[in-house]
Amino acid sequence: MQVLVVGGGDGGVLREIARHSSVECIDICEIDKMVIDVSKKFFPDLAVGFEDPRVQLHIGDAIEFLRNAKEGMYDAIIVDSSDPVGPAQELVEKPFFEMIARALRPGGVLCNMAESMWLHTHLIEDMISICRQTFKGSVHYAWTNVPTYPSGVIGFLICSTAGPPVDFLNPINPIEKVEGSRKSSRELRFYNSEMHAAAFALPSFLKREVSVLRDSPTSVGRVYV
Amino acid sequence: MQVLVVGGGDGGVLREIARHSSVECIDICEIDKMVIDVSKKFFPDLAVGFEDPRVQLHIGDAIEFLRNAKEGMYDAIIVDSSDPVGPAQELVEKPFFEMIARALRPGGVLCNMAESMWLHTHLIEDMISICRQTFKGSVHYAWTNVPTYPSGVIGFLICSTAGPPVDFLNPINPIEKVEGSRKSSRELRFYNSEMHAAAFALPSFLKREVSVLRDSPTSVGRVYV
Repeated sequence: MQVLVVGGGDGGVLREIARHSSVECIDICEIDKMVIDVSKKFFPDLAVGFEDPRVQLHIGDAIEFLRNAKEGMYDAIIVDSSDPVGPAQELVEKPFFEMIARALRPGGVLCNMAESMWLHTHLIEDMISICRQTFKGSVHYAWTNVPTYPSGVIGFLICSTAGPPVDFLNPINPIEKVEGSRKSSRELRFYNSEMHAAAFALPSFLKREVSVLRDSPTSVGRVYV
Repeated sequence: MQVLVVGGGDGGVLREIARHSSVECIDICEIDKMVIDVSKKFFPDLAVGFEDPRVQLHIGDAIEFLRNAKEGMYDAIIVDSSDPVGPAQELVEKPFFEMIARALRPGGVLCNMAESMWLHTHLIEDMISICRQTFKGSVHYAWTNVPTYPSGVIGFLICSTAGPPVDFLNPINPIEKVEGSRKSSRELRFYNSEMHAAAFALPSFLKREVSVLRDSPTSVGRVYV
């Protein structure tokens, strides 16, 4: 498995990917080297993710990085970027998602941080709409609780490209069976299979918005949100 | 069905109970009349709950009210109280839960607001431990996201007394089938059957705490948390 992390300079996402022994290579493209330096100094428990030998660090603009990436080379791409203002604005626009889809193999998956359902409903709608046009496998929205984030939640856009179907709600390797999780001295404190499935339950107001989008003539692909 | 609300002076819980046509009588015992007056003035969308003809308002101390309540008279009791400091401290202690259990019919249910899993883990453990000793049916913990609450969540203790078993995760009348919900001009914006089931998924740190409690010699009754 080849995985790409966009952003994620604190190292936390790397640390969690590294639990999975099936992963052979983890590219990370972070635009701001200082994020990494600060994390190494003040958040060693997160920055430990950079110590895995499978990690390849690229400092630079992910748009540029993806433009040069070989078509279909990644099994999974995880976007852990800052909020979509200023330089990160491009990361919620269509060309970026098209580049992601191009870099994924058939049936490859994207997990993209996608704001708060309470505060950014319209932005979420726009992102879902773009992803439906771009990802011909499936498009889901999920969320979980993060006490320190505004409104206490963070959402995720979870998509797959056309190819072998991906059952996001029922992972082939549930986290409890992942070897790296059992062996690791660092026990998971929050995430488990029940929390995984629960993350896909959406409040009615979000389901309604999403179903309006589903029925619009621009919608493409199978959608299970 | 006979329902009792403890606290809940804003009227929101009443409004939601009133959707259910099976409910014949809703007693509410609120200690602070001013909460009701303020809600009627500034939050008419919540206070509308008091307009249902089945509502019987009692201004006073719920401890006193429950002491005088007929044994086994309620099918459900919902505790929507303030945080357990000062006068509300008694509402997280054993005698209160014993009075609740006494006022419920066999197989009757309690839903009790139960703090934040992030901020009050020990208090939650204590409440679960007390409820296991008191409620001989089942004891669950559930939670959902409320953006305006500290840490973005609120929890619930959901218990039943000995008697006909209650399957809390799979309600006999899912909310989508409740007549009052279909007819009402006020559509549900958040709650639905998927969100209901998802609320019972617990993060690993809470599951672990809870399973330690379950294995302690004081634990009594069947527990599904």
